[in-house]
Parts: sequence; structure tokens; C-alpha cells
Amino acid sequence: MDFSSFVTSLGTSFLIFLVLMLLFTWLSRKPGNTVVYYPNRILKGLEPWEGGGSRTRNPLAWIREAMASTERDVISMSGIDTAVYFVFLATVMGILVLSGVMLLPALLPVAITDDSLAKTAKAKNETFSDLDKLSMGNINEKSPRLWAFLIATYWVSFVAYYLLWKAYNHVSALRAEALMSPDVKPEQFAVVVRDLPPVSDGQTIKEQVDSYFRSIYPDTFYRSMVVTDIKEVNKIWEELEGYKKKLARAEAIYADSKKSGSTEGTRPTNKIGFLGLVGKKVDTIDYCNEKIKELIPKLEAEQKATLREKQLPSAIVFFTSRVTAANAAQSLHAQMVDTWTVTDAPEPRQLIWSNLKIKFFERVTRQYLVYIIVALTITFFMIPIGLISAFTTLDNLKKYLPFLKPVVNIDAIKTVLEAYLPQIALILFLALLPKFLLFLSTIEGIPSQSHIVRAAAGKYFYFTVLNVFIGVTVGGTLFATFKTLEKHPNSIFTLLANSLPGNATFFVTFVALKFFVGYGLELSRIVPLIIFHLKRKYLCKTEADLKAAWLPGDLGYATRFPGDMLIFTIVICYSVIAPLIIPFGVVYFGLGWLLLRNQALNVYLPSFESYGKMWPHMHARVVTALLLYQVTMFGFFGAKKFFYAPILIPLPILSLLYAYVCSKKFYRSFATTALEVASRELKETPNMENIFRSFIPASLSSDKIDDDQFEDALSQVSRTGSMA
Amino acid sequence: MDFSSFVTSLGTSFLIFLVLMLLFTWLSRKPGNTVVYYPNRILKGLEPWEGGGSRTRNPLAWIREAMASTERDVISMSGIDTAVYFVFLATVMGILVLSGVMLLPALLPVAITDDSLAKTAKAKNETFSDLDKLSMGNINEKSPRLWAFLIATYWVSFVAYYLLWKAYNHVSALRAEALMSPDVKPEQFAVVVRDLPPVSDGQTIKEQVDSYFRSIYPDTFYRSMVVTDIKEVNKIWEELEGYKKKLARAEAIYADSKKSGSTEGTRPTNKIGFLGLVGKKVDTIDYCNEKIKELIPKLEAEQKATLREKQLPSAIVFFTSRVTAANAAQSLHAQMVDTWTVTDAPEPRQLIWSNLKIKFFERVTRQYLVYIIVALTITFFMIPIGLISAFTTLDNLKKYLPFLKPVVNIDAIKTVLEAYLPQIALILFLALLPKFLLFLSTIEGIPSQSHIVRAAAGKYFYFTVLNVFIGVTVGGTLFATFKTLEKHPNSIFTLLANSLPGNATFFVTFVALKFFVGYGLELSRIVPLIIFHLKRKYLCKTEADLKAAWLPGDLGYATRFPGDMLIFTIVICYSVIAPLIIPFGVVYFGLGWLLLRNQALNVYLPSFESYGKMWPHMHARVVTALLLYQVTMFGFFGAKKFFYAPILIPLPILSLLYAYVCSKKFYRSFATTALEVASRELKETPNMENIFRSFIPASLSSDKIDDDQFEDALSQVSRTGSMA
Repeated sequence: MDFSSFVTSLGTSFLIFLVLMLLFTWLSRKPGNTVVYYPNRILKGLEPWEGGGSRTRNPLAWIREAMASTERDVISMSGIDTAVYFVFLATVMGILVLSGVMLLPALLPVAITDDSLAKTAKAKNETFSDLDKLSMGNINEKSPRLWAFLIATYWVSFVAYYLLWKAYNHVSALRAEALMSPDVKPEQFAVVVRDLPPVSDGQTIKEQVDSYFRSIYPDTFYRSMVVTDIKEVNKIWEELEGYKKKLARAEAIYADSKKSGSTEGTRPTNKIGFLGLVGKKVDTIDYCNEKIKELIPKLEAEQKATLREKQLPSAIVFFTSRVTAANAAQSLHAQMVDTWTVTDAPEPRQLIWSNLKIKFFERVTRQYLVYIIVALTITFFMIPIGLISAFTTLDNLKKYLPFLKPVVNIDAIKTVLEAYLPQIALILFLALLPKFLLFLSTIEGIPSQSHIVRAAAGKYFYFTVLNVFIGVTVGGTLFATFKTLEKHPNSIFTLLANSLPGNATFFVTFVALKFFVGYGLELSRIVPLIIFHLKRKYLCKTEADLKAAWLPGDLGYATRFPGDMLIFTIVICYSVIAPLIIPFGVVYFGLGWLLLRNQALNVYLPSFESYGKMWPHMHARVVTALLLYQVTMFGFFGAKKFFYAPILIPLPILSLLYAYVCSKKFYRSFATTALEVASRELKETPNMENIFRSFIPASLSSDKIDDDQFEDALSQVSRTGSMA
Repeated sequence: MDFSSFVTSLGTSFLIFLVLMLLFTWLSRKPGNTVVYYPNRILKGLEPWEGGGSRTRNPLAWIREAMASTERDVISMSGIDTAVYFVFLATVMGILVLSGVMLLPALLPVAITDDSLAKTAKAKNETFSDLDKLSMGNINEKSPRLWAFLIATYWVSFVAYYLLWKAYNHVSALRAEALMSPDVKPEQFAVVVRDLPPVSDGQTIKEQVDSYFRSIYPDTFYRSMVVTDIKEVNKIWEELEGYKKKLARAEAIYADSKKSGSTEGTRPTNKIGFLGLVGKKVDTIDYCNEKIKELIPKLEAEQKATLREKQLPSAIVFFTSRVTAANAAQSLHAQMVDTWTVTDAPEPRQLIWSNLKIKFFERVTRQYLVYIIVALTITFFMIPIGLISAFTTLDNLKKYLPFLKPVVNIDAIKTVLEAYLPQIALILFLALLPKFLLFLSTIEGIPSQSHIVRAAAGKYFYFTVLNVFIGVTVGGTLFATFKTLEKHPNSIFTLLANSLPGNATFFVTFVALKFFVGYGLELSRIVPLIIFHLKRKYLCKTEADLKAAWLPGDLGYATRFPGDMLIFTIVICYSVIAPLIIPFGVVYFGLGWLLLRNQALNVYLPSFESYGKMWPHMHARVVTALLLYQVTMFGFFGAKKFFYAPILIPLPILSLLYAYVCSKKFYRSFATTALEVASRELKETPNMENIFRSFIPASLSSDKIDDDQFEDALSQVSRTGSMA
């Protein structure tokens, strides 16, 4: 890529970004769009804009607002997890800024005044771009100038260590502060108990759990809730909720028709067959009413049956004290580790009930099986895609799906299909991959949503780094230099090192594209906006429908964080080789910080709160990227035949040591709750009944069912002493 | 080694054993020797023999008694740790018995009817012994007879898995039972707190600890004891105790002399210089009295100073409930893991006060440094010994220690010295090695004696297995087959496999020698008996002296267990190759079980009780030996060019999996105390004051010092509420 095409590419991306930003400024002013651009504020009962004067707003006001917002604002609007994500963005940006401040003025002059590329180009009669002259590739082999790059390698590493250490301390304090908050949080009073042993004769599971925990915690045990198999009752409940929604919509349509059309109005109708497309036509309101009437007793019967007969060997146990709950979650209860496993409870909303029943060694087995599957997917993901695209050739399509023949035979479509079929398969695969990884993490048996997201993000990180970064870099070189490889069966890292300089410009463009176009789309929310307006116009009939149409998701850590890490890995690995990439990295994370600050404050709704448990995971990944960078640099100095390259050997060892010390010092307080934190005073005496009720799944909680019926699965209040 | 010399060697060993056993029968009957042969019973206040009729005793009565004793007897006489050691002996013996029952009748006929050795001997004109014909070495390459040996390899492994699993369950139950005992054990009410953070202004360490733990455990916190630097006070106290002892002896001598000699008696005197050899001559009684009078106020002053000024940033914290103590020991207390580290307290007698002050990361660092030193010692231990023996040649001795010249120049002595100097260096090294390993384990920073012993035993195991077993086996072959090695740079395991058959007879003799002579000496207690009688005759003057002379040590797990493991490793590795070794292994462990049962019941005094914490360590070592066996067998089948050898590949994987499952399922309850165990009811309300006092080191506890002075370092009783 020569210089002019590089600038063109950058310019185009920037132009798209500008257009999208202006679009955002214009669209977000319109009052009808506030639910798309400020849903988080609206749901929290705040004005869309501070001050409210929408017309007089500066187009760049959102930037000022994002800059002015404090960490405390973020926590109050979006929770600790979001604040931790900003710590990550700020830390990574800090690493790049401090690296750039030293590396750009020091290394660029050293590189541009050398002449390795010119010599090679002359010898081989090739050309090179001016951009390449600014990289380490322009340094002659064995040149003493390499010392500058070697010192730079150390500088970047130490900057990273320092800032990561500070960040870990800060996040640890954030987590501690949140956990010691005087507000009553139900999950702090509960623990999840799994792997209950078989019940002895004449005892119910509830009695077993109650007597076990009452004997260990006589003073602080409150009561327990036996986990039940709620699959069936959930199905009925969802069906019922569906009909209730349908009824509300039908009634709204009917009321509308009365107002606008004939005074009588037309009663809406629908077909009861497959997808409402076939079958008998019925009056929707009557039909729904009938169905609801039918389902309510069915649900109640199923609720009773579930509570009585579908108890599973696990339970949620409640304590009247935070300290006891934190203490219990960390302690071994039974002599055998695979019975009475006690762990801390996640928030009620993120508890995965169906995973609670999985037994200890089954969980371990599932975990390793999933790891193997993921490793295979990462290594061989091209094979099924290749097979699919081989199968989906035009000829095969015509053969197996003959009704497509007339369409496929059109020349234009034929050309497009022939060109893009493999790519479409790849794009489909990559789009489905996060879902697949989330699914894999779920079947590991993890009982909380946030943990599943963390596990999926870890898998996705390895996928992107190994396939996109190393794959793109090495892949191209591998075929080009197959002969030299056979002669020097070097390590993957040397190979990577040799491949890096050639791809520098490609990755700079990649980073720029990612932030200009990606963030432009993120800020302008064009897609959600269009979908919302379409839905509002054609589908939404009730207030609930409308809310569902604009209700935003969460930040989506499972894919967002690995995406950021890919950029960071690329930038850090190139930071010394081609320092010009650093400013682009800084802009990526700086712009990201700014934009997502706006989105976090105004748009996204967190779907869970794990009190920063994501951080050790982020930290470990950043150190992994650093390690990759250090090993690659060692290989690269080797390729430059630099005599002092072994001076770099301590660096990866230091990184491993650093990771070890960090995990030793900080990790345990992220895995569990430190007791000194849990022992802080509460604002009020916790209402244990509310805490208990908050863990009852929606499909099981019913106003009609009175407490007595719950007693089959849920233990009695210990304070009444009726069990003693 | 041919058959006759093998039988001769066995016969000699057996004869020695018989003689020693008869000696034991004869000597143990003499009433004067009961303190040597039955000290444990005497100290427990029991009759030396049950029934008491010493003269009418059957010479083999001890065997009947050992056989009749139950596990409960062992526990009551010698504790859980000893009982666990017998479980180890019984399990290992069980593995060998069950292996032998199948392997001996199945493999010996298969081996002896083949003719590989005869063919090779013919071709190379060598000889072979009849014993070798009974081994796998006599099977032809690629012979289908190898199937029998392959199945045998699997059989031995599965027998081991099954019995080890049963044993782990049993030991786990033993530990649980001991920990849930209704007796009050001080260590179950205490935790060790290390890495206290710097004290804030105006607070003492005691106040800091008290307020911290009282806020977390308001109901069950009792009080705390700040750890002090007792090095100085210990020194003075030991000096004082020494003079007290000396005084008692001098008075006894004086009283004796009055009775026997002149009516006046001779007052004993001593010189006060180096070792009592030089310096002024003084009257011992006066001198000691004077010294004691001098030291008592010095000790008291030092005690006060220690408690006030030499406080260290660690403490022992006491709770009024076992559950809370067990709970606290497992939970994270501070947000940062390297402050307020809480672990369970060992027994007061095995607490290493000087190690308590070592900080978190210093402990980790020390641990890894020690591991490196041990690895270097194991690998290169021959080098310093070689250097020492090179230095201690006769010429050097004469040069540096000229006064030895006349002795060394005697011909007989010269020959012996020249022949044995290197061996003496080796023997010295091997004799000092356990002490060295115990020292290394101590400087790791481990705060309890039993843990240090476990750590040292682990190190010693690797030393013996790697150096004695693999060293002897491979060492010889390595030099013999250096040329073939160069051609086939195979793994160490193939090499080991090739070396094994040649050494089978050597190791059989080694095992036999070890049990006949070793156990003979163990049972007869010749050495302690002679030492006791010598001391009684020439040194002991007081009752206390006499008791010190016969007081036995403990079983000495640090060397005993690795010794047993060496035998087990040898036997299991040869079990399939030369099944004839199995009966010898069975006799070793059977005889050991019997003999040590006698010694445990009658002789040894356990010096600590760790409630079976040694077991996971034993289990892991047995599985390690099994793994070595499986890998060696795979190599050996490869050397026999057996086509189906890869069928053995699943075995080592299975072993690793087995070890993983065992450690997952059982280990945590050995590392800590399960809460369901700690929550059992106690026989009586614990006397907290006694529990607290039992942790005060001897040098700090004094009747004269009243409680008020302790308050500097020891916190006040929480129940009085004076701190609130």
C-alpha cells in the first residue's frame, strides 16, 4: 500500500465518521428520538438532557458532557462493571500514550535516517513506500541503532506494568467500596448450595438443608429455597404472558378501530395455525381470553407440582448477616468436596436455574470438554466453512434446491453469488460465533450470567488474536516463504516476527477503519433508530410494545472487550516496530472512551452487576498481549541478527512473574468477598422476606399462591423456631 | 549374581534378623530395660505388658499383640498420624498382595518356558542365571506371550487405583472423626494471622487485631495474642534451665558422695571456661545458685521487654467456637490477599514462632528459592561430594592437618582410608541430607512442625527415587551402552526400561537386606539400649537425666516414609518385569506393619498431631510411583518391539486423571477443616483461658508475671467488654 492510497483510505473513513456524527447531532435533537438516544436516562426518571434546552445545544455538547462525567456518575447510571470497563479503556490508552510520548520522537528519526529498505529495493529491484521508512524494517541488520528499539521494548513493558498495577489497585478499591455499601443487596445475604447428598429416609430436601445449615450457623441461618426444575412451568408461564400481550394488543387495535373507522369497530382476528398463517380464523380477543382462562389454572397446578415434585439437589440458602454469607461461600462444608458445595450467590436476575442441578464432577468434565471443543474450533474453524462453501456451490444449490434455478440463472446474481458464497459462509460463521461461545460457556454448567459472559469473552479473545492477528500476519507470509521455512524450521514467533513489518500499514488502516466507522455507527445508533421507527409505525400497538421497541441492550462485553483487545494486541505488537501505529491506537481508545461514556450514561442498560469480576480477566488478557509482544520482539531482534537480542529474554519471564504476583495479591478478593468488606454496617436492618422473595423466579411467584404452598420447597422461617 | 550367591545373601540377612529378634525377646524381658522397650506405655501410665507376667511370655507374644491391636488402639496410643501411616503400609501391602496373587502364577510359567535368554547367551557366549529366566527378559521380542505381561500391567494399576481410593476414603473418615471429637483441642479454637498491615497512629498491634476481628466476629471473638520475637528471651530461659539442671545434678552428686564416701562429702566443682575444660575452678552448686539468682531477674526483665517492645506483625486469634475458627481459617479477610492472612493454627507445641513474622511474598519467594536449591541438590549432589573427596585425599590431609601424619602413615590405616574416603564423604552427606532438607523446609517460612516434616519428606522422596533407583539402574547401563545411545537418542524412560532387567536381582537383595537388617535393628533397639545403659552408668545423676536418656523420639516420618516409598517404587516397577520381587515387597511391608505396630504401641512418642495431613502427600507419591511404573513399562514393551505396546498409553493418562479427581474430591478437607465436622457438639464448654494459655511459649510463661503485664501483647478478654 503506497502513501496516497493510505491517505485516501484514512480520509474516507474519517468522512464517514464525520457524517455519522453530524447525523447523531441532528437526530438526537428530535424529541421523538429521545427514547433511542437517552433510554437509560429516561428509565432512571431523568430528563433526556441536563437543563432540557434541546434546541440550543452545541453539536459537540455530548463530548463536553462525557468529559465532565465522573466515575461516580458512571457507577450510579450503569454500575461497577461499566466503570471497570472504563478503567480498562483508560489504562490501555494510558499505556499507549506514555509509550507514544517516548517512542515517536525517539524512534522515528532513528528509523528514517537509515537505508536498509533502499538497499534491499535496489538489490531486488523492488519498490517500498515512504511509510515503511518510518518503521524498524528500515534499520540495517546488526546496526547499533537497534539499541534504541531494544530500550523502547523495555519502556513499553514497564509502562504497562506500572499502569496495570495502579489500575488493579483502583478496581480492587472500587469493588470493595461497592461490596461494603450500606445498601441491602439480596445476593450478599445468600449462597448457592449444590451437590446435595441423597436425602435420608423420611426427610425432605428442605428439611435436610435446613437442619444442616442450622447446625453450622445457628445464629445467622434464615431459611432456604430448594431449587426446582422450572422448565415446564416456565413454558406455561411464557405462553400465558404471550397471550396476555396479544390480548392487550388486540384490545388496543379494537379501540383504535372504534375511534377511527366505524363506530362499531372491527374486532381483530387471527388464524390459529402455524405462525398465524394457516388454520381457523378466530376473534383474537375472545380467543386470548379463553386461552388465558385455560392457562391460569394449568400454571397454578404446574407451580404446585414443581414445588412439590420437581425439587433438585441444590438450594439457595439465606443468612441474616452479610459476613456469614461471605464466610460460608468460601468455606468447605462437607468432608467430601463434591457434596454440599457452597458458592456465593449471583444477583437473582442472572442466576441460571437450569445449571444448578449439574453435579460437581460433571461440571469439571463439561468444562474440559468445552475447552477441547473451543481449541478445536479455533484451530480448525476454516475446515467446516470450507466444507460449507464447497457444498453451497451454484451447481449444488441448483441440484438440491431446484426452485432457486430461475433466480440463480440470472447472470448478475450468478456472478455475485459465485464471488461471495464462501465469504457469506465465513461472515455467517463469525456472526454466529459469539452466540456459539456463549452457548458453550452455558453448557459448562456456570450458574451465573456474568460468569458466562466472562467465559465467552475469554474464548472469543483467543479466537480473534489467534485467527485474525496471527492468522492474517503469518498466513500470508507462510505461503510466500514456504521454501525458506523448510530450511529454517523456526518457531512460530520468529515467523510472526518476520511477517510483522510487511503488514504494518494494513493494520493501521484496519484500526482506523474500525474506530471511524465502528464508533460512528455506535454513536449515531442508525440501525436501532430505523428499527425503532419501523416497529413504531407498523407493529407497536400498546405502550409495552413501544417500550420493548426502544429498550436498549447492555454494553455486550462478550464481544466488545475481545474486539478492543484485538486492537490493543495489534497496536502493542507494532508499537516498537512501526511506532506510527501508536497514535491510531490512542485515538481508538480515546474515542472509544468518550463515545461509550455517552452511551453508558445515556443509552445502554446493564443486564447484570458482578462488581467488577470482569477485571482480573481483562488484566490477564492485557498481560497476555504484552507477553505476545515481548516474545515477538525477541524474535524480531533475532531476525535483525542483533547480537544483544538475548537482553530481551528477562522480559517475558518478568511478565509471567508479574502476572503471578498480581493474581496472588489481588485475585482472591475478586473471586470472593473479603470479610472486612462484608462486615461494614448496613443502612437498615435487611428485610429478609424481601431478600428471599427476590430469588423466586417469575414463573413460580404468584400472588394467588399463598405462602403455605411454598413450604414444600422453601423452608420455614427459622426465627419462628417451628423446625427445632 | 548367580543363584547360589543370591541365596547366600538372603540367608545371611535372615540369620541376622533371627539373631536380632531373639535378642529382642531376651532383652525386652529384663525389667531394667522396660524403659527402652515400652517407654510409650510407661509414659501413658500403663503396665509395660498387658497382664504383667513378663517371665512367662512367649518369645513371639509381641507379634500376637501387634496383630490383635486395632486401629483405635493405635490412635489412642500414638495418634491419627500414626494410624494413617499404618493405612499407608496396609494399602501398599494390599496392592502388592493382590498383584502377586495374579502375577506370580500367571507370569512365571509364561516366562520360564520361553528361551530368549538361552538364545542370546548362545549367540554372545554369555551366561545367565536361573533367576533371570523367571523374568520378562526371557520372553522373545514380538512374542505373543507379551500379552500376558501387558494385561498384568493393567491389573497392577487398577488394583492400585481401587485400594488407594478405598484408603483415601478411610483416612478422610479418620480425620473427620478426630476433628469432630467432643474433646476440646486448643488448636481448633485458634487461627494464625500473619501479614498485619502497619498500625495506624496511637494504636497498639493488639488493639488493631482486636478491633479488626471483633468487628467481623462480634459474637465469637475471644481474644488475641500478638506474636513476639522470643529469640532473646528463649536464650536466657534456656540458659536458666541449663543451670537449674546442672544444679540438680550437682546436688545429686553431692548427696551421693555424702552417702558413699566421707561423711562430709565432696562438693562437685567445674571449670567455667570453654566446654568446662579450661578456666577457673568453681564450686558447682554455689556457682549455679549464683547464676540462677542472676538470671531470674534478667529473664523477667527480658520477658517484659519482649512483650512490650518486640511485637511482630502477626498474631494468634482465639474464638469461642470451633466453627468460627474453621470458617475464619478458610476465608479471605482483607481486600488485598497479602495482608491479614488467616490460616488455621497448628498445635501449640509445633508452632514455629520465628517463622510467623515472614511476610506473604517473602514466603512465596523463599519457597521457590528452596525448590530451586533442592532441584540443584538432587541433580548435582555428586559434584560437591566429588570435590570433597578430591580435597580429602591422603596427601591433602597430611598437608593441611599435619598432626594426622603419624596415624595416616600406618599402612593398614592408609589402605582403608584410601579405599573409603570418597564413600565416607558420601555416607556423611547422606546422613546429613535429612537434616539439610528439614532445614530448607524450615526456612521456607512454614509455621508448623508437621508441615515442615511433610515438606522435607517430599523432597527426600524425589532425592531417593531419582538418585538411588533411577541413578543405580540407569547409571550402570549408561556407561555400558554409550555407543548405542548415541545412535538412538531415546527418552530416559526407554533407557530405564532397558536397564531394568539386569538389575532385578540386585534390587531383590537390596529389599531383603533392608527389611531383615533394618527391621531387625528397629525391633531390637540395640543402639538406643546401649546408649541408655551407658548414659545411666556414667552420666545420669537425677531422675530427669534418666528420663531424658530413655525418652524415645517419634516415628520420624521425614525419612521413614521416603524409605518405604523407595522400596515400593522399586517393587512396583519390577512387579511385571520380574514378578519374583513381589513376595519380597510384601514381606517388607508386612513385617514393617507388624514391627512398627509394636513400636508405635510401645516405643515411639509422637511429637505432633496433624490429623492425617500427611496422607494426601503419601497418596500423591504412591501415584507418582505408579506413573513411573507405567511409563517404564511402556518403554520396556517398546524395547521388546511389541506391536501392541501403545495399548499402554491410556494408563499414565488415567493415572493423571485419577490423581486429579482424588485431589479435587478429597484434598480440600485435608488442607482445612470441613465445617460440618467442626460443628459437632463439644463434651464441655471450652475453658478459653486454658486454651489461650496453652499457646504461650514456655520462655514467656511465668507464674510471677501477672496478667496485667501480658496485656501489652495479649488482648483483653472480649466478654468483659472493656474494649468496646
